[in-house]
Amino acid sequence: MTQASIITIGDELLIGQVIDTNSAWMAQELNKAGIRVVRRVAVGDVWDEIWTALDEEQKYADIILITGGLGPTADDITKPLLCKYFGGTLIVDESAKQNVLDIFTKLNRPIIDRNLKQAEVPDVCTVLQNKRGTAPGMLFNKDGKVFVSLPGVPHEMKGLMTDDVIPALVKQFKFPAIIHNTILTAGVGESFLAELIKDFEEALPAHIKLAYLPNFGMVRLRLTATGFNAAETEKEISRLFEQLKSLVADYLVTDKDEPMENVVGKLLLATGKTMCTAESCTGGYIAHLITSIVGSSKFYNGSVVSYSYEAKEDLLQVDKNILQTKGAVSEEVVLQMARGALMHLKSDYVIAVSGIMGPDGGTTDKPAGTVWIAVGNKENLQAQKLYFRFDRARNIQLTATNALNLLRKFILAQS
Amino acid sequence: MTQASIITIGDELLIGQVIDTNSAWMAQELNKAGIRVVRRVAVGDVWDEIWTALDEEQKYADIILITGGLGPTADDITKPLLCKYFGGTLIVDESAKQNVLDIFTKLNRPIIDRNLKQAEVPDVCTVLQNKRGTAPGMLFNKDGKVFVSLPGVPHEMKGLMTDDVIPALVKQFKFPAIIHNTILTAGVGESFLAELIKDFEEALPAHIKLAYLPNFGMVRLRLTATGFNAAETEKEISRLFEQLKSLVADYLVTDKDEPMENVVGKLLLATGKTMCTAESCTGGYIAHLITSIVGSSKFYNGSVVSYSYEAKEDLLQVDKNILQTKGAVSEEVVLQMARGALMHLKSDYVIAVSGIMGPDGGTTDKPAGTVWIAVGNKENLQAQKLYFRFDRARNIQLTATNALNLLRKFILAQS
Repeated sequence: MTQASIITIGDELLIGQVIDTNSAWMAQELNKAGIRVVRRVAVGDVWDEIWTALDEEQKYADIILITGGLGPTADDITKPLLCKYFGGTLIVDESAKQNVLDIFTKLNRPIIDRNLKQAEVPDVCTVLQNKRGTAPGMLFNKDGKVFVSLPGVPHEMKGLMTDDVIPALVKQFKFPAIIHNTILTAGVGESFLAELIKDFEEALPAHIKLAYLPNFGMVRLRLTATGFNAAETEKEISRLFEQLKSLVADYLVTDKDEPMENVVGKLLLATGKTMCTAESCTGGYIAHLITSIVGSSKFYNGSVVSYSYEAKEDLLQVDKNILQTKGAVSEEVVLQMARGALMHLKSDYVIAVSGIMGPDGGTTDKPAGTVWIAVGNKENLQAQKLYFRFDRARNIQLTATNALNLLRKFILAQS
Repeated sequence: MTQASIITIGDELLIGQVIDTNSAWMAQELNKAGIRVVRRVAVGDVWDEIWTALDEEQKYADIILITGGLGPTADDITKPLLCKYFGGTLIVDESAKQNVLDIFTKLNRPIIDRNLKQAEVPDVCTVLQNKRGTAPGMLFNKDGKVFVSLPGVPHEMKGLMTDDVIPALVKQFKFPAIIHNTILTAGVGESFLAELIKDFEEALPAHIKLAYLPNFGMVRLRLTATGFNAAETEKEISRLFEQLKSLVADYLVTDKDEPMENVVGKLLLATGKTMCTAESCTGGYIAHLITSIVGSSKFYNGSVVSYSYEAKEDLLQVDKNILQTKGAVSEEVVLQMARGALMHLKSDYVIAVSGIMGPDGGTTDKPAGTVWIAVGNKENLQAQKLYFRFDRARNIQLTATNALNLLRKFILAQS
């Protein structure tokens, strides 16, 4: 099976100032095309370290993809290094030059020498024209291995991968089918799931792998099959996947690799219903998750992010007395928030949350991590108290996930 | 200088199902302690590949940190491998066993064999007790190199790093000072900045590096100095940093490594003022950025996420006629949204946004990526039209960043 390695270049990755999202996206695309990623390596903007990584990675992989290090500023040494590594000379590529000129004309910005240098490429590479930025991609062939250098700006890299790199690789190599099937479960721990499907897992053939991916109170189970006969592999994994689904049916959220909010969105679209939210402690994060879905305006009407007491009173008609006697983090308040949102945002379903995400704001009665969640509709609202013991960011994410899951179950129970 | 390499284990990283945030955090902490991270490598749950990575990385580094592969499920082969690699036998660690028992008692969950196996460790390691989960950390010494294996669950890994790993490494090695100073700029391109500070950059001594980190319409400039005399290094970088700041003064957002929303929050706290938001196209994302800041309830009152026309009318008193004649994405509507939010959320300052984030919803007049932003206070509201040409997620982020920057400038202009 054809193997790939991804090299990411940039000091910012090694001092941890930037989280590498490029590699994950590239790995997904390579996998879909039937290429197995065996290693991912990050190195700094240091000549010897980049050189060594090129030497090393070709030992493990047939395809070496390189991102980063192609920007117009002085800390980038990648292009001259690639030129020397593959034994070429830098020349101006006329198409790339025209592209740089077009972009600066469109932006109405003065062009400087530094920008035009972006059009220089080693004369030993195939130039991949970048439609989204000034740095072209470069493809090198050496001793039966393929090396591709791409800019690190995510949308530029993605465009080049989709339009040029994957098609070129598919042409040059013969890839097997890699099929992933993923289940999302909620409300059950990793080790309990493992017990539940122990026999199933032990009976899996060698070319089919099962992985557990725990994440924010949920666990994804991923079944992966590899085979040169795509139809047969597909058939085999489908059968096993159905078996796995029935084993974990009680905890199953979706049998696709999609987030919780997608599942809720689809349920609403299927029944022509709408929803809204009233968020205190999650501060708009649930709204953000939902509105990240393309087309969410068809089922989502909006949110009142009532961070202050006054906002709860003015926009959601929460009772001032109850706020003072019970506190904002209480069953009564979260139910009133839900009712207020249903009224103003004229929706079929609602999620309301109020809690203390920490690290400040906790009391003995209500420590940081305490949260009240209400879900339901006009006829029926259900409130539940949960407690998370993590940091602020994680508590916000867990609250959002749990609230969406509670609404999902509520909607399902209606039909 | 002491060098480290980070090995991350897990198939999910190589098929791109999970974004690796652990490495970035670990790299930050190691850097702060004076340890240079030279490489980061991700490998799958495959015996030979993990083994090779252990062999390889010690060629480049004195410290090898390993995360992942320690979960209670069957796809984890890391512990037996480490045991063999360092020539030990698996034994039960009594403290680790007690920890597992305590956690399950607290969670009130039945304990199974699989969970107890978490307490097994190679008898050739120093056990690092995990206060946040069941899998202990393990520290191995071999030929003058240190290997540390940590669980992949972020908060468990972080706890072990802070409490045990960094202190143990600082004891064993002598580290130089690494000092990073970072500037955030907005409203200027990377290549233009590079021209502006060309002479400064060329005059930098060899042990001080400058990096350009472009991100969502902003560019961070990072100056890094390394030296064994901490006081002297600090003094030298401070002088250069002040020089750099004055060179880019026109575009300077902050001279700390912090996001835009922090800068806005500090400005408000310093003057005892408050703010609110009215969000259409960003769907709560601006609220989420602000409420991710600890203590944001002191200056942030909330948001109306008015995704539907009705929400704009009911909660923000946007004029129905204007919505119909001008459309939701218009100067008039975004100004009315701002006024509505100021009134209901009783704040000193406001941000309002309305736009089309794509890929759907664009028209010839208003293509996807068109957005109106209003910022200001009761006396003075300013609206501006912007156009972004990226995907939905990036357009949302760019809208949020630009809106926060406009408010930042507005507040500064008041004083």
